[in-house]
Amino acid sequence: MPEATRPVASGPARVVELAGGVGGAKLAQGLQAHLRDRLTVVVNTGDDLERHGLAIWPDHDTVMYTLAGLDDRERGWGIRDETWTAMDQLGRLGEETWFRLGDRDLATHIVRTARLAAGDRPTDVARHLQRALGVAATILPMTDSPVRTEVRTDDGWLDFQTYFVGRQQQPTVHEVRFGGAAEAAPTAEVVASFEALRPTDAIVVAPSNPIVSIGPLMAIDGLRAAVAAGRVRGIPVIAVSGIVGGRALKGPADRMLVSLGHESSALGVARLYADWIDTFVIDTIDADLGPAIEALGLRVVVTDTIMTDDAARSRLARDVLQASVP
Amino acid sequence: MPEATRPVASGPARVVELAGGVGGAKLAQGLQAHLRDRLTVVVNTGDDLERHGLAIWPDHDTVMYTLAGLDDRERGWGIRDETWTAMDQLGRLGEETWFRLGDRDLATHIVRTARLAAGDRPTDVARHLQRALGVAATILPMTDSPVRTEVRTDDGWLDFQTYFVGRQQQPTVHEVRFGGAAEAAPTAEVVASFEALRPTDAIVVAPSNPIVSIGPLMAIDGLRAAVAAGRVRGIPVIAVSGIVGGRALKGPADRMLVSLGHESSALGVARLYADWIDTFVIDTIDADLGPAIEALGLRVVVTDTIMTDDAARSRLARDVLQASVP
Repeated sequence: MPEATRPVASGPARVVELAGGVGGAKLAQGLQAHLRDRLTVVVNTGDDLERHGLAIWPDHDTVMYTLAGLDDRERGWGIRDETWTAMDQLGRLGEETWFRLGDRDLATHIVRTARLAAGDRPTDVARHLQRALGVAATILPMTDSPVRTEVRTDDGWLDFQTYFVGRQQQPTVHEVRFGGAAEAAPTAEVVASFEALRPTDAIVVAPSNPIVSIGPLMAIDGLRAAVAAGRVRGIPVIAVSGIVGGRALKGPADRMLVSLGHESSALGVARLYADWIDTFVIDTIDADLGPAIEALGLRVVVTDTIMTDDAARSRLARDVLQASVP
Repeated sequence: MPEATRPVASGPARVVELAGGVGGAKLAQGLQAHLRDRLTVVVNTGDDLERHGLAIWPDHDTVMYTLAGLDDRERGWGIRDETWTAMDQLGRLGEETWFRLGDRDLATHIVRTARLAAGDRPTDVARHLQRALGVAATILPMTDSPVRTEVRTDDGWLDFQTYFVGRQQQPTVHEVRFGGAAEAAPTAEVVASFEALRPTDAIVVAPSNPIVSIGPLMAIDGLRAAVAAGRVRGIPVIAVSGIVGGRALKGPADRMLVSLGHESSALGVARLYADWIDTFVIDTIDADLGPAIEALGLRVVVTDTIMTDDAARSRLARDVLQASVP
């Protein structure tokens, strides 16, 4: 049977996906369609921030809303059937409003902040929210400790959301740091999700920004070690390139790669991942990069990676799952 | 010149109003129309509560929204141009939703909670919000310490909002207590607002619920003493009856008076206030109670007290201001 039509039943039973926001969420949705509760998504927390006293977790919430089927496809972020009344009033009350929070989205932040204030662990709060919204998969913050992604620009060090939303990714990024990552440990749940994997399962790296989405995850020693230990036990690690035709599908990953001295291409991303992954999935448009990526010691899978709709998400997920079968 | 048409120029220069929610807000609006920033409203904080981790101050906000011209007249509470998206989502997240918080209103609670968490005093937070909304008068929480009104019913002790909103004032109230009132002191701002009064000024008691709106204010020793000290210095204290024709204009004050052993009438309210006020303003419908109230040692003013619209609010305020001139 040709690989492209092999049924998913032959794919891994269980997947741990490492993910940032939008790209991670789309692939997670495709994976969840095949795996349901056998999918665990470990999300970057480096973008998390506090606004108006509320705990905001952009990557977690993007993945959660998407897996709950509540993501706003038209706007490309946030939750469907949104209104903006509170934001309007926050402006009247003299608050800065460049970080837009919709009314429906605010409910998430309000419940989260209250539970954190009551002493609940971030992981428990995350699971409560996911269950309330009926998410089949498990979404785990990479750590319960604070990690803060900051970028050095010509305007100095900026916290990530100030750069990303406030300055609309305009400043050139000269350096990136993940404050708190050195002291942060993955949670017991994250460690357990890796330890539960068997050689017929897989670790999947989403087509997220390699620098500021996958970067913080790999900056946590315990998480990097968990991936490495998985490989030692024979669990395949498959990454999907978020750079297609030399461009980021979304966000500033391409410009960021260049300004940090890397190549803005699937090959450039493969070089960043080469020492801790096994298989790299690239778009058909980048098929000519295959040999150079294989020369890094990686297996290469070429397929359509643009996740325009549900069918495309499911199809890429199927290809990724099949790629994990040797 | 007959008293009814005497210009307000002859009224007091400065007023401190003691107020609960809706009735206090309506009279405050009338007073503010005449006095602008020479009005200080000291509001009951016994109804304040925390919902979803947010600090909610029902009486303060009712007065603030009304004085800012933002009150929703049709619904009778809350803020105009309101939406309910966050509340809908809070319900989906498994939160109790009987205490309805609109999206616009939420902005107030969010800003307040963040500032309190940052260590700001309740009084400073209140002033910040009022200034942001352009309120001319000063609205002061009666104290910066927690005071919690609770009512004993056949279902046991209930916090006030559980009784008022959650149980829709259905249970009979057998006893009322103001937790924390014995330890609470009025703020420096409240004390200063009384001390700034001269004999040509006035202290006005709003037509609020005498038991659970005015009651908590008078349960604070320092506040009761400030009113008493004002009277000693010749400052008139004028109260408006919230019971008209034996019925509360709004809320459960009438039933509460009866179940607590008082009379549900302007006379019953006058008896509760007789030892600390000078003048009692009653509705024309209650004119026949005048002699009995005068027999308590009070001066009686009879006028239309129903504040149906802006004109009626301003007219009652004018009558109250004129009543303070001996």
